[in-house]
Order: sequence, then structure tokens, then C-alpha cells
Amino acid sequence: MTTPRDLVQIREVGPRDGLQNEPPVAIEDRVRLIDSLSTTGLRAIEAVSFVRADAILAMAGAAEVLAAINRPDGVRFSALVPNARGAELAVAEPIDGLEVVVSASNTHSHQNVRMSTGDALDAAANVIAIGHDAQLSVEAVISTAFGCPYEGEVDPVLVATMAVGLLDDGADMLAFGDTTGMATPRQVNALLDALVAAGVGVGQVAMHFHNTRNTGLVNIVTALDRGVRVFDASIGGLGGCPYAPGATGNVPTEDVVHLVEELGYDTGIDLDALIESALLAEQIVGRTLPGQVMRAGPRLRTVNT
Amino acid sequence: MTTPRDLVQIREVGPRDGLQNEPPVAIEDRVRLIDSLSTTGLRAIEAVSFVRADAILAMAGAAEVLAAINRPDGVRFSALVPNARGAELAVAEPIDGLEVVVSASNTHSHQNVRMSTGDALDAAANVIAIGHDAQLSVEAVISTAFGCPYEGEVDPVLVATMAVGLLDDGADMLAFGDTTGMATPRQVNALLDALVAAGVGVGQVAMHFHNTRNTGLVNIVTALDRGVRVFDASIGGLGGCPYAPGATGNVPTEDVVHLVEELGYDTGIDLDALIESALLAEQIVGRTLPGQVMRAGPRLRTVNT
Repeated sequence: MTTPRDLVQIREVGPRDGLQNEPPVAIEDRVRLIDSLSTTGLRAIEAVSFVRADAILAMAGAAEVLAAINRPDGVRFSALVPNARGAELAVAEPIDGLEVVVSASNTHSHQNVRMSTGDALDAAANVIAIGHDAQLSVEAVISTAFGCPYEGEVDPVLVATMAVGLLDDGADMLAFGDTTGMATPRQVNALLDALVAAGVGVGQVAMHFHNTRNTGLVNIVTALDRGVRVFDASIGGLGGCPYAPGATGNVPTEDVVHLVEELGYDTGIDLDALIESALLAEQIVGRTLPGQVMRAGPRLRTVNT
Repeated sequence: MTTPRDLVQIREVGPRDGLQNEPPVAIEDRVRLIDSLSTTGLRAIEAVSFVRADAILAMAGAAEVLAAINRPDGVRFSALVPNARGAELAVAEPIDGLEVVVSASNTHSHQNVRMSTGDALDAAANVIAIGHDAQLSVEAVISTAFGCPYEGEVDPVLVATMAVGLLDDGADMLAFGDTTGMATPRQVNALLDALVAAGVGVGQVAMHFHNTRNTGLVNIVTALDRGVRVFDASIGGLGGCPYAPGATGNVPTEDVVHLVEELGYDTGIDLDALIESALLAEQIVGRTLPGQVMRAGPRLRTVNT
């Protein structure tokens, strides 16, 4: 008898968070990428965003994407919505869940969505209510949770207070976004300490790390050691960092799956299939992506003498 | 009063291990890079290799490099030597120490230096004797210590046995090379367990990780947690992986220093100066290097609104 391995859920955000930060690609390519990802064993894919097309052209056509994709059993497709208007649009489409983002940094919130953090929290409460009315789960994402590119340090106690407020508003899950790759194990531990002290259980927590300073996978291991079991990642490392030209954004999904499986956890994901999806993502955006395992293969891939 | 922070020594291998895996660059550029690195607070720089120029053209001219570089107080410059002939050449030059490599994998050893591991161990004993005759310290590097690109898994007990033999031969320090980026925390812990069981103390151990599968910094954190305090890194991530075209080689020095300092250790290295060296390295090789912090800056570098 072998001991069953702990399950870790890796959620794919490349079609949304990744492609949002790339020059726009054709809708059929977005569909092709999602269809490739949905056959790898991934169970959660952030597929689209209901933002205004004039705000983010790369995300235009969410309804067309949702109408065209395959829907294998057991794969959950979600949509990011920026506000109540976006939520109303989203719930009219075939979608399994919503995400709504609030920035922990007031300056970042103003710069990003022209709202204070307080107004964004009110907007999030509206989105949660709209989602629930439509029988959809709604996740609240707190961005700049480990630091802000404008303000610098962000107080983990403030983030935990926001988290509690969002749970009180009905959020079904919380995600903490390392928007510009400022997290290191020190910040990850400090935030988890603050969350635990505020009564938020790790079962309600997802972590969304960026690799902008090469600390993304270190942070995942830190959070795994603390009991977090849900992580976001972007195929091939698709995307980038709007605050640092040429820098890396989301952690690459295939690198995360490779490491997490090597650590003894079960992701349920076929790494070889994921590498194929990463190569497709690279072909679609036409630039070299920062994923490493997509180039080198799994650690035991041998070469001939 | 503040508690003094634990010292961690980051050793720069870019001028040797990095440039060896890049198309050859001019000797004056190699000197310029070393001179830039030696002003950052780095205390140990692997500067040259005494291999035959017809074997590795990028490393030709070791004596010219050593004759031309600045030598700030407290900075140690070392040379890699492949065999007794190389050691004899090296000790005739102004150098502070030697490194000699033995592969834990017999197949890799044959492919790389046309010797069995046993013959390579004998050659290393000769190099150690030659170095010691010249009053130089000699470090033994065991490559493919976490896996072999030809054979797959490498037994940590075998690596530990080789380590003990090399210490018996007089090696002053041991380094363990993750030649093709096959290490994950599981292998790092297994090797350290085997070393401790064989009586090798962590004070005799340096770790040399590659980031070929994005696990380099995770492995450093794992080894730090086990008490290892000496790590190799390559400026900007200079170099590559000869077994996987386009893949990454050594961990980037500036990314390692950034993380290790954030974890609360003291490296004595000026990160801003290191980033300048990384940008110089990128300019010298004329390609985008995989270092992340060189692009994004330290985590608290803020942008203006």
C-alpha cells in the first residue's frame, strides 16, 4: 500500500492574465489554447475577462470565446469581472465562476481601475451578490498583496482585514496576487500569519505568484509548507509585467506542476500534455516564453550518448 | 542591538562556467566583466579555465586574462583545471585556488572528459597534490550530483562516497554540481542526508545549482535550511545548458543575492552594483540573459505614478 499523495490544485490563468499582457491574438487562437489546456488534466481555467474592449483590447470577445470552446467534464471555466457591469455581462454567458479583483494598495487601485480600495471593495460586494444570484461561485482576488509597485511594502494585517471583509461579503474563495513579483518567503509567511490570526483558514486561500524576481517557485514551496493547496499559474509563463519591460509575469504552469509533483504532491495534470500547450502558447504569441521545463523537459528526460 | 545576520557566500562563476557555454568573446571583455564583478562585494570569482584551447575556444587565453585583471583586496580568483597538465599551467600563473571536476556519472564522465569516473578521481588526486605543492587550496566539484542527463537518477550514497574519497585525497572544499538542472528539494535533502551520514559536514559543502527547470532558487532555499552557506551563481544567468538548446544554465547571481538577502542573510554584496555587472554581461554576449532582478530591480524599487 502506498500513502495517497496530497492533492494540489494548479489553476490555469494564461488565457486571461497571460494573454491580457500580450499583444492581442485572434479569438480562434485563444479558443485553440483553451481547448489544448482543457485536455491536460487542469480542472480550473480562467478563460476570459469581461472588461470593456476599449480598456483591454486583448480581452475583447469574451462571449465568442466562451461560445466556441470545448467543455470537457470536470473542467471549470471562470471569468474575471472588473465591476457590476462586467458581472452582469458574464452571468448571461456559459461560465462556471467569477473572479473579482481588489487592490490592497490605494495608489495601485487608483492607477489600475480609477477607484479607491474602499470603492473597489464595495464594487466587489456587488459582484459577489450578482454572481450568487446567478448561482455562481465568486472568488475575491486581493492584488498587490505582497507589495505595491507605487507604495512599496503593503501591511499584511491590512490585507487580512480586507480578506475577512470579502468573506463577510460572501466571497467563496480568496486569492492573493503578487502583482509585480515582490513576494519572498518572508512576505508569504507574514501574510499567512496575519490571515491565520484573523481567522482565515488556508483552505479558503489561493496564491497567485509572479516570477518577476525569480522567487515565484520559492514562494509556492513556502506556501505549500504552510498548508496552501491552490495556486495560479500561466502556461509557458505567458504574460509579462506591465511595470518592468521584458520582465516575467506569472509563474509558468508546467514548471509549477513539475516541481509540485517532484515534491510528492498530486496535481492530476499530465506534464507532457502541458508542455505541448506551452509550445502552442509560444507559437500563438510568436515570442520565446520564459517557461523552462517546456524547453528542457522533465528532470528524468535523458539524452542519447 | 540587532542580531548579526548569518553570512552566506555567493561565488561568481560567470566568467568561467557562464562564458564557457557562450560563443567566444574578446579577452578584454572577459577582463572587463571580471573587473566589474570584483568591485561588487563578491569575494570569490571563478575567473578562468586551463583547458586546451582546441577543446573549449571560449576559455582560451587564461594567462592573459589573469595578467590583465584588477585584484582588489579580499577577492579570491580561482581557475578550473581539467587534469594534472592544466594544474601545472595554472600554478605558474597568479591564481588563488583551483577547482577540479569529477562526474558522479560514469557515462557523463566518458562523454565529457573521455575518462571513467574512477580515472577522473585519480586525476583529481593529482590535481590536489599539484595545487597543494604550490600552496593553493583545491576544491573538488562533483558534477551530475543530482542526476545525469544520460543515466537519469544518481545515487546520493555514491556521491557521498566520492566526496569522502576526495576529502581523503586532500580536497579543501567540496562543491556539488547540478549540471543539467535536475535537482529538486527532494534530491538536495537526499544528498545532504547521505553526506551527513558519511561524516561530511555542511561547512565543507558548496552547492552549484542550475535553473534549467526553474528549481534553482528553490534548491538554494532548501540547502540554506539545511545549513549550507556557500553557493555558486553566474552573473545574469550567463551560460546555458549544452543538453537543452535555449534552456537556462547557472542561477543568476543577482537573483540569488536578492533572495538570500531578503531571507535575512548577509552576502556582503552590493545588489545595485551586481545589476550593473549583469547588464554589462548581457551587452558583452549580445543576447538577453535570463536574470530577472536585472530587469525588474530589487523588490522595493517603486515606479512613479
